[in-house]
Amino acid sequence: MPLDEIKALTFDVFGTVVDWRGTIVSEGSRMNRERGWDVDWAAFADAWRALYQPSMSEVRDGERSWTRLDNLHRESLDTLIPQFGLDGLDAVACEHLNRVWHRLHPWPDAVTGLSRLKTRFVLATLSNGNIALLVNMAKHANLPWDAILGAEIAGHYKPQAEAYLKTADALGLQPDECLMVAAHNSDLVTAGGLGFRTAFVARPTEYGPSQTTDLSTERNFDIVAEDFNALATTLGC
Amino acid sequence: MPLDEIKALTFDVFGTVVDWRGTIVSEGSRMNRERGWDVDWAAFADAWRALYQPSMSEVRDGERSWTRLDNLHRESLDTLIPQFGLDGLDAVACEHLNRVWHRLHPWPDAVTGLSRLKTRFVLATLSNGNIALLVNMAKHANLPWDAILGAEIAGHYKPQAEAYLKTADALGLQPDECLMVAAHNSDLVTAGGLGFRTAFVARPTEYGPSQTTDLSTERNFDIVAEDFNALATTLGC
Repeated sequence: MPLDEIKALTFDVFGTVVDWRGTIVSEGSRMNRERGWDVDWAAFADAWRALYQPSMSEVRDGERSWTRLDNLHRESLDTLIPQFGLDGLDAVACEHLNRVWHRLHPWPDAVTGLSRLKTRFVLATLSNGNIALLVNMAKHANLPWDAILGAEIAGHYKPQAEAYLKTADALGLQPDECLMVAAHNSDLVTAGGLGFRTAFVARPTEYGPSQTTDLSTERNFDIVAEDFNALATTLGC
Repeated sequence: MPLDEIKALTFDVFGTVVDWRGTIVSEGSRMNRERGWDVDWAAFADAWRALYQPSMSEVRDGERSWTRLDNLHRESLDTLIPQFGLDGLDAVACEHLNRVWHRLHPWPDAVTGLSRLKTRFVLATLSNGNIALLVNMAKHANLPWDAILGAEIAGHYKPQAEAYLKTADALGLQPDECLMVAAHNSDLVTAGGLGFRTAFVARPTEYGPSQTTDLSTERNFDIVAEDFNALATTLGC
């Protein structure tokens, strides 16, 4: 495979670059201590993330006009607040909690790996996160993106083809000049089907210690790397 | 003026951050030496830039669907090639010349100033350049943008209001949380009229040694700074 034709790396972000579950559990645990609560934040994080795909369905189906992920996250949060006994949160605290997605922690190898990869490639997000979310996350976590692209730019949520194809096009590249990097088989299968090169980086605790999915590749991808530093080494950075 | 409410700096790029005329003259002079030509590249650069505003008019007026600046630059270049005796350029050389806008040199203070400003603010482009052009320019010139925004994201060219307002909105900010930085009075007057804070940084040789416009402010802007380092100092970075 002519890896030397790769010009840009496009990244799934939630789960691949940052640890959404661990961050929510960490921030929630602090709230438990401060407020004397006993909320199961791991269950909360899983429930919030479980509403992620359904929340985008109406937008994907065209039943709803373009709606940013910040707003979809907030609607899901509003659903979960009574279920998890979080009714004590005032408006400011609710909004702060919703913006935990702007403050997600990177996996330990992410910043060093991306910094190495940036020396040789254009690094772009190809995420369903909205621009403001991803910009704030990058400032917070020190993620050295060259471009914040993906769903909001395309006006389509992954796995819709437009999200991928419009990202490559915005970079002035053909799909096969882009390497899609993700911890999720389904994302890479879609990207690969559209002509992207594919790199799988397992994140075996994204869904917690009992994770059973995406522990390994389910198809032949172009690259399989243990983490972003290993990916950088494979790509000669 | 509550400068402490500023969250993001949005930058005009051509002329404000990078020296388009000097770069074109520099690359052109090299072509003269290599090809034994005697092209007046300063005149060429001025002519190319003179076609810039007219080239966007049809898009602004809705007579033409969205067209990226790379394509408008190319159309203008194709007009100028016979006028300047550049017919000897083959297709590859023409495309390379058109992409000189991806390789523009930063003003001497730009990288250090932006790097200081980045420690405290979100830095975004608010340019008529297309995404690929601005991403490649940033890689080439080491410009540490947090986000590549502006015309292509908005689907509108400056000075149309949407270019400014959709940039602030994409950042999740109100216009008055954004400081527009430009070397051009007109850009700042438009941005200020839409609620942006304004910072003028003169680039007195953008149009060459005989420049007569934009040497000083024609309105009261929020900040006037000699260069990006002075701007960083003013903003406490």
